[in-house]
Amino acid sequence: MRQVDYIIRGDYLLTMEGDLSVIKDGAVAVTGSDIVAAGTFADISEKYSSQKILDGKNKVVFPGLINTHTHAAMVYFRGLADDLPLQEWLQDHIWPAEGKWLSEAFVGDAVELACMEMLKAGVTTYSDMYFFQNTAGEKLEKIGMRGVLGAGIIDFPFTGYAKSVDDYFINAENLINNWKDSELVFPCVAPHATYTCGPDNYKKANALSEKYNVPIHTHLAETRFEVAECQKRYGKTPVEYFESIGLLSERLSAAHCVWLTDNEISLLAKRKAGVTHCIESNLKLASGFAPVAAMLKAGIKVAFGTDGAASNNDLSILGEMSTAAKVHKAVSMDPTVVDSKTTLLMATKNGADLLMLGDKIGSIKAGKKADLVIANLQQPHLMPLYDIYSHITYCMRPSDIETVMVNGKVVIENGKPATMDEAEVIAKAVAWQKKIKAS
Amino acid sequence: MRQVDYIIRGDYLLTMEGDLSVIKDGAVAVTGSDIVAAGTFADISEKYSSQKILDGKNKVVFPGLINTHTHAAMVYFRGLADDLPLQEWLQDHIWPAEGKWLSEAFVGDAVELACMEMLKAGVTTYSDMYFFQNTAGEKLEKIGMRGVLGAGIIDFPFTGYAKSVDDYFINAENLINNWKDSELVFPCVAPHATYTCGPDNYKKANALSEKYNVPIHTHLAETRFEVAECQKRYGKTPVEYFESIGLLSERLSAAHCVWLTDNEISLLAKRKAGVTHCIESNLKLASGFAPVAAMLKAGIKVAFGTDGAASNNDLSILGEMSTAAKVHKAVSMDPTVVDSKTTLLMATKNGADLLMLGDKIGSIKAGKKADLVIANLQQPHLMPLYDIYSHITYCMRPSDIETVMVNGKVVIENGKPATMDEAEVIAKAVAWQKKIKAS
Repeated sequence: MRQVDYIIRGDYLLTMEGDLSVIKDGAVAVTGSDIVAAGTFADISEKYSSQKILDGKNKVVFPGLINTHTHAAMVYFRGLADDLPLQEWLQDHIWPAEGKWLSEAFVGDAVELACMEMLKAGVTTYSDMYFFQNTAGEKLEKIGMRGVLGAGIIDFPFTGYAKSVDDYFINAENLINNWKDSELVFPCVAPHATYTCGPDNYKKANALSEKYNVPIHTHLAETRFEVAECQKRYGKTPVEYFESIGLLSERLSAAHCVWLTDNEISLLAKRKAGVTHCIESNLKLASGFAPVAAMLKAGIKVAFGTDGAASNNDLSILGEMSTAAKVHKAVSMDPTVVDSKTTLLMATKNGADLLMLGDKIGSIKAGKKADLVIANLQQPHLMPLYDIYSHITYCMRPSDIETVMVNGKVVIENGKPATMDEAEVIAKAVAWQKKIKAS
Repeated sequence: MRQVDYIIRGDYLLTMEGDLSVIKDGAVAVTGSDIVAAGTFADISEKYSSQKILDGKNKVVFPGLINTHTHAAMVYFRGLADDLPLQEWLQDHIWPAEGKWLSEAFVGDAVELACMEMLKAGVTTYSDMYFFQNTAGEKLEKIGMRGVLGAGIIDFPFTGYAKSVDDYFINAENLINNWKDSELVFPCVAPHATYTCGPDNYKKANALSEKYNVPIHTHLAETRFEVAECQKRYGKTPVEYFESIGLLSERLSAAHCVWLTDNEISLLAKRKAGVTHCIESNLKLASGFAPVAAMLKAGIKVAFGTDGAASNNDLSILGEMSTAAKVHKAVSMDPTVVDSKTTLLMATKNGADLLMLGDKIGSIKAGKKADLVIANLQQPHLMPLYDIYSHITYCMRPSDIETVMVNGKVVIENGKPATMDEAEVIAKAVAWQKKIKAS
């Protein structure tokens, strides 16, 4: 009988491995940061014992959800401006606010709020594109959350972060070196988009991504405006342009991909690039409907991202799953597409693969890191229960999530943060709100 | 100084009257079932005093949400079958389950679960189309929830409810007479749809609706299949067919209206008919995208419905608001349509008007009934706060709803049902689940 740190039990256990069959009365044995074994409680309790057995009555256990595209610190701009034309929203509200407030202090405080919101909603890993990522990394280590932190790169300097364009690359390389031994923080490079980053900077960013074998995280084919701009500048649509400058690879983490030709879908599939579907942001900003059913059919690893909370307006992957599962049925006029198993796969395994962390997270399997979610099914809105996958996609709410574990540590307990002071984080948000509102 | 039963205070009070301006530090005075006054707390507390002053710190107070199209008892089929073609879903799963289980006992138990879910989510009134509505009415009186209960009418008998088609009309008229003095239960007639109800039965239902001045609640123009069938049978599209048989009036409560011509939008507007937008059901069943922006522009009173939980899969109007506000921006390629004030108007005032209850509910105004929601804004996902309307539409979750009052009585207190036993309602759902699953 081997002693382990935790035995986590659930009436339902979804490993997201193999044929995705549901393990009834399942259990996961965890020691240190690792999953030691997963199976039926009967099997696990024969081989393992623990001082800490988490009760599984009316619970479901599944892998931590993965948010593969956000700008976490923008959570402080949540609801600052809505229901506006995109250019007015960006130019009159978001960019001025960023220009005025972006700083280490801002990012540090805002990231805490974003992490709290995500962890409470069962998101254990997020992939970010922003600035001051060393500050974000320090917060992640303190909180105990996993993050793939992309150092933003654009073609023009940005006071307080990059005096020259070279500084973006220096900052990115420093970030990568700073965190190379971290178990939680995975740095990467994040050139912004085809309309803010020229081919030379994209190539340099890609070289850095290749040198360190880290993801290259960018926006791609988000709006019709972007496609038109790209065609004007480079005579190609965005993905074809990326192909021409050597950007398409397994390391590419492309956010949005709303406007794609059939050829571009084939190219993304052929080069094994990953795509983050940000449906709520795409809807709210009127960007359009990404061809998700076609991308999945082509074998592209499509994952979910919330985008920043200024354009969503929350950081819940459960919400993205539910919205995507429904919207793509109407878009395709086919109620069988993007089914509930597929959405949970997208939010777990696909996300991990896209972030080049497939060996560590994304499913419940011996040897992987213990990033787990336990949700309480004893809720009126989850009654009755015929299909657990359906309930997670179509009915589950962040408030159902009771326990969240990252890297073997409990970070949410009874729905409350175990490693953060909720009142303090909210007080900081209110203080920033007053400053930003007054400006 | 006049004594009242309650003074309900909120950092933000949204009356949904006049220019929709936000009352900061607002309050509502309530006595018996009625709203006595609403305004700033300073003004209210000068004129009224109460033993029960509900604290308003970090709270928002707004009118109870209205769900204008559902089949509440179908909550017991939530998640029974998903991600299937519509005909397979209906014919192989939903209809057989209804055929087997529908009864007074089923409806009585299921309606309790549906009411609990809705009340916890801030829904104070729902409009239903189903059978055994006397049983539902008894539950509503016991629970203290408001309902517009539509007696279903179809062209063929239904064992246990209607031996002949005449029985539907007898049942409907009895229902209307039974509840004519109720403050909570408002009966109406509910012929099912153009493909299950012929013109004679529609006309008879309409005559009954006219005789008693109650709504006539029906499905209309939900799917392309229905439009094609209607054209085949009657040589007209659904709304034009309704116009030809005299069905379009202020009493018409038409659910869905997904497939409409411009002429049909004009007709609905001209006849002042109401439309319930069931976006999540329309998406999930791949019915299509209703032309909501165009309907609103034409001046049609468009409200929100969840449809049954078998096709949604929940009964939350907050979810419909958020989904609709986002999806219609992408459908219209215009991020300014269906803005956050509009969605809350649709979920309150439009809903009340559509249900012919505009003099009683739908806004916070002296003389109206006290159907109120108090939500707690002190949540990470609601931080920071720049615009309260934006937060209600884009970020608020059912779990933020703390207190719900219907007809002057508190039915949800600290997020928990005050007039129902949650454990008992869940236990009944589990018992039915076992029976239905085994069948």
